[in-house]
Amino acid sequence: MKRQIAIFLLLIFFISPLAGFAQMRSPQNPRLGFIIHGGAGVISRKDLTPQKEAEFRKKLEEAVLAGYKVLQSGKTSLDAVETAIRIMEDSPLFNAGKGAVFTADGKNELDASIMEGKGLNAGSVAGLHRVKNPISLARKVMENSPHVMMIGDGAEKFAREQKIELVPAQYFWTKHRWDALQKIIKEEKAKNKKVSEFRNPSSQNERYGTVGAVALDKNGDLAAGTSTGGMTYKKYGRVGDAPIIGAGTYANNQTCGVSATGWGEYFIRLSIARDISAIVEYKGVSIQEAVDTVIKQKLQNLGGDGGVVALDKNGNIGISFNSEGMYRAYIDENGKPIVQIY
Amino acid sequence: MKRQIAIFLLLIFFISPLAGFAQMRSPQNPRLGFIIHGGAGVISRKDLTPQKEAEFRKKLEEAVLAGYKVLQSGKTSLDAVETAIRIMEDSPLFNAGKGAVFTADGKNELDASIMEGKGLNAGSVAGLHRVKNPISLARKVMENSPHVMMIGDGAEKFAREQKIELVPAQYFWTKHRWDALQKIIKEEKAKNKKVSEFRNPSSQNERYGTVGAVALDKNGDLAAGTSTGGMTYKKYGRVGDAPIIGAGTYANNQTCGVSATGWGEYFIRLSIARDISAIVEYKGVSIQEAVDTVIKQKLQNLGGDGGVVALDKNGNIGISFNSEGMYRAYIDENGKPIVQIY
Repeated sequence: MKRQIAIFLLLIFFISPLAGFAQMRSPQNPRLGFIIHGGAGVISRKDLTPQKEAEFRKKLEEAVLAGYKVLQSGKTSLDAVETAIRIMEDSPLFNAGKGAVFTADGKNELDASIMEGKGLNAGSVAGLHRVKNPISLARKVMENSPHVMMIGDGAEKFAREQKIELVPAQYFWTKHRWDALQKIIKEEKAKNKKVSEFRNPSSQNERYGTVGAVALDKNGDLAAGTSTGGMTYKKYGRVGDAPIIGAGTYANNQTCGVSATGWGEYFIRLSIARDISAIVEYKGVSIQEAVDTVIKQKLQNLGGDGGVVALDKNGNIGISFNSEGMYRAYIDENGKPIVQIY
Repeated sequence: MKRQIAIFLLLIFFISPLAGFAQMRSPQNPRLGFIIHGGAGVISRKDLTPQKEAEFRKKLEEAVLAGYKVLQSGKTSLDAVETAIRIMEDSPLFNAGKGAVFTADGKNELDASIMEGKGLNAGSVAGLHRVKNPISLARKVMENSPHVMMIGDGAEKFAREQKIELVPAQYFWTKHRWDALQKIIKEEKAKNKKVSEFRNPSSQNERYGTVGAVALDKNGDLAAGTSTGGMTYKKYGRVGDAPIIGAGTYANNQTCGVSATGWGEYFIRLSIARDISAIVEYKGVSIQEAVDTVIKQKLQNLGGDGGVVALDKNGNIGISFNSEGMYRAYIDENGKPIVQIY
């Protein structure tokens, strides 16, 4: 009898660490999570040639795998978010960084924001003309300044002090974005519109395509980031939702991380990202139910369009959009990249 | 018996409209509501002379009565909010409009936002140097543009097109704000601080004092607005919470209207105004409980300070702050103005 008890205790001794490990990997506890988007509402099936679609899928896969690799190496969710967004900013395919669209007066105006769920720290930049990777400047604002949001010349002055890479304005010139501007200028001239009349963008498909990412690291820390080149033909230093903490980006370790893309004005008016976090916090529903409530009910009812990608604190994925498509990719439970458009 | 029934029915006939009227005035139904603030965390009892305090009280009473009169005349909550905020913007007492504080390089940089609870429309402006009344420009952005937020030169270009009054930069020069800047420059020089080291503003009392208003009109429409001159000695085009929809300002006819004031970075990270609306929406608690939860628990725990004024859809008042004081005034149930500081 004594011997049986001894074996039993020995068994417990060896099994308990394994049980702890199993628990660590269960859905109730943090696991690595990574999801990105490359814009919503930009894709019409008839305009997207098989070749173009293949390019998008390849770049999305590259970005999602790069971010995931960062997490696997033990680095933070902030590192993963920054890494993946920089890859998309450096590609001419997306409306962020290199591929930014043109404003009405032929400039490129870039915005970005980043937030960490631990401590609710955040950084945001808007109205940039010369910063190659706005997401990295947003992170510097968060980590090396007492502020959350910086705009315009002041933000670029801070960028220089922080040794963030600046590029000549021509860096952002791409033929397809320039052609898109010329097309809209022609259309607007034909209509001879006044300011008060262009409330409904006529060529919405040309006007957005923000990028973003949400990550959950091995410490259970969430992070989210978003970067954009704004809307083609935008005027008056317009700022969309991407640099607005609570609208385009939000992260809270107690709830979820969210990055949004779409018709920015609606995302600001609804505080889309913050509302998703609030629904998870106060109603205790799943992340998928929370994103669907905000996108398919509230945004839809108000007349806006776009979508979000999200991760809850356990790494569960939430994806919702009411536009024709949303470029997105995530890492599934087996560690495999899944790339989707429609 | 027949006669008794007839008298009873007659009684019902006469009483029922009165009952209806009583119900209309009960807390369950919209009544006129108006509340303003002139900044939190700015007041130390030892610094506020009786004469200065009398000036603040007089101006707060003037602003709250002017806004309330607008509501009584049958105009909208937006009109009331704009009217009261313009009065405070035109006074050198508050850190908004005329009384705006100076940035580190001796400029005045103004921000404002406004939102209506009906339809969730919003307008916001940031980084202005020459607009006399930023709250009126924010309203024009909401009503006459397709955008929610405009910044810097672009916003001022829009102001010119909308015939919004522009003033020379000298208009914003006031001796007490200039002296406050010189004092901080001297302190900072003595400390020889680096960017990364000034996360905790040392002279917080000098650094904020935003104004704001929330109104409920006879149609049951809520509106909220906020206007600020930022923080003394701010750098790098820093933007605080005042122009951020969801942080400094939010209004939703289904829940409440909120205007905030305080250490802006914390208000952005918590999406203070939006969170109060979410708590009312999802938890169904009173407006006072909602504002206390966000200010006295969440903001306090994160280490920030400031306060909010709010009205729910029935006109009930919510006031909360964790700073030493908050300049504020509201109209009580008898239509009388109440002015408070501590």
